[in-house]
Amino acid sequence: MKVTIIGLGLIGGSLAISLKENGFADTIIGVDALEESEHKALRRRIIDEALPLKEAVAQADLVILATPVDVMLNLLPQILDEVEQQVVMDVGSTKESLLSKINSHPKRGRLVATHPMAGTEYSGIEAAIPNLYDNKYTVVCDAEKSDKDALKLVEQMYRSIPMNITYLDAQAHDVHTAYVSHISHLTSFALALTVLEKERDEERIFELASSGFGSTVRLAKSSPDMWMPIFRQNRDNVLDVLDEHINTLARFRTLLLKRKFEEIYELMEEANHIRKILK
Amino acid sequence: MKVTIIGLGLIGGSLAISLKENGFADTIIGVDALEESEHKALRRRIIDEALPLKEAVAQADLVILATPVDVMLNLLPQILDEVEQQVVMDVGSTKESLLSKINSHPKRGRLVATHPMAGTEYSGIEAAIPNLYDNKYTVVCDAEKSDKDALKLVEQMYRSIPMNITYLDAQAHDVHTAYVSHISHLTSFALALTVLEKERDEERIFELASSGFGSTVRLAKSSPDMWMPIFRQNRDNVLDVLDEHINTLARFRTLLLKRKFEEIYELMEEANHIRKILK
Repeated sequence: MKVTIIGLGLIGGSLAISLKENGFADTIIGVDALEESEHKALRRRIIDEALPLKEAVAQADLVILATPVDVMLNLLPQILDEVEQQVVMDVGSTKESLLSKINSHPKRGRLVATHPMAGTEYSGIEAAIPNLYDNKYTVVCDAEKSDKDALKLVEQMYRSIPMNITYLDAQAHDVHTAYVSHISHLTSFALALTVLEKERDEERIFELASSGFGSTVRLAKSSPDMWMPIFRQNRDNVLDVLDEHINTLARFRTLLLKRKFEEIYELMEEANHIRKILK
Repeated sequence: MKVTIIGLGLIGGSLAISLKENGFADTIIGVDALEESEHKALRRRIIDEALPLKEAVAQADLVILATPVDVMLNLLPQILDEVEQQVVMDVGSTKESLLSKINSHPKRGRLVATHPMAGTEYSGIEAAIPNLYDNKYTVVCDAEKSDKDALKLVEQMYRSIPMNITYLDAQAHDVHTAYVSHISHLTSFALALTVLEKERDEERIFELASSGFGSTVRLAKSSPDMWMPIFRQNRDNVLDVLDEHINTLARFRTLLLKRKFEEIYELMEEANHIRKILK
């Protein structure tokens, strides 16, 4: 199996490592806008060769699009224009904008839209690691719009890692990910800013910051190049969740203001239900 | 060295394990309001014996108060009433309320007020673990109000773990911890509530939740018994930080609303400065 990966960053690079390691891919062709990323990927043997986009698509059995989601909007139609029997798969964090753009493309059936729910706060090919995806979930969106053979290949690929697969339509995907991923990043960026603006004496933060603070602001290290396009494309859902989150914080604020600590206790007990869901 | 630990939970229990393991304590006496916690601590050999409060204080060289901070308000004056030459140390997350209560106590000098910046989202003696404190920072508050020998003993104890020590007055401590610890817990509780209220289908959250979401809401598993008294005692500082945080979120909201994505990009770049501080 020849796999082309377009976008050699944390996501594409880590996928390349997994597919090479487990034997799903015999050859991995890499494509990146930055020559330096291709060179690094070659030196780390994450890819076997780097080729221009057109050739890389022509030679592949499976094309994986792993660029930031704004780049996907431009690249995906171009790639579909080029494919014959190849299977194309994207791994973007937003789906409605992208899929509405190619829904009437004659090659729509060759595309399988997916979103593996995995990542770290680091970015670039330097951040690519083995086992990033192991035993996590991937979402396949609008599966019925993909050709059966294309869907089957992509399912085999994810199961080979192994990953679990769940199915959602694009709209539901974008709503759910606003809740379980995008808002976490937004609040983390905001919390980092709040604390940085206050605590100019950076050494002091470093000394006092407990591991709790570290885990809450970890995502604030994430790349704006990846996240700005996600917020742009999922703006409406992110706004809805952000409004609800600000309301929840305002409830805590009112209760603190009125010294209603028993009610704060009850809200925290409710929040504890997250224990049943996240181990 | 005979050490009495009052409050056998995550914090007191983990400290007991460290001090036993490194030889600082020859004997550890445990005191807890729950007999069951004393039994568990005895069975796990975290403590050598369980005694009633008065006896436990009388027999100790060093008394460590590790209860929730509301309980400390009642216990600390009682304990100081009992001590002769023993050193007393608390490990509470808030300092102004507690210290203002005993500042004119004739035995004030025997107390060293500290706050080791370490913890997990779990609680109770079951959650006590080795190495919780290793190489983290502890804050010593209002050090000049402690007797020199008492301060020296507590410094030796923390360095034996080993922990780093930093010094702050009580007021500065409460402001800083509102920023680097308390607000993280509050936002985490709020985020868990926001998502739980929306995502009634809990299985779905579990499937889609990425590790990013997990780390952002991890603290929402924390014990309300520990955290409600902290929010009560540090209410004014927490309110200040919460107001600033809501303002920061509202800035993101306005920019999303107006589709000013370049400005969102710039805010995220600013937030990225947290990389330099938190590894």
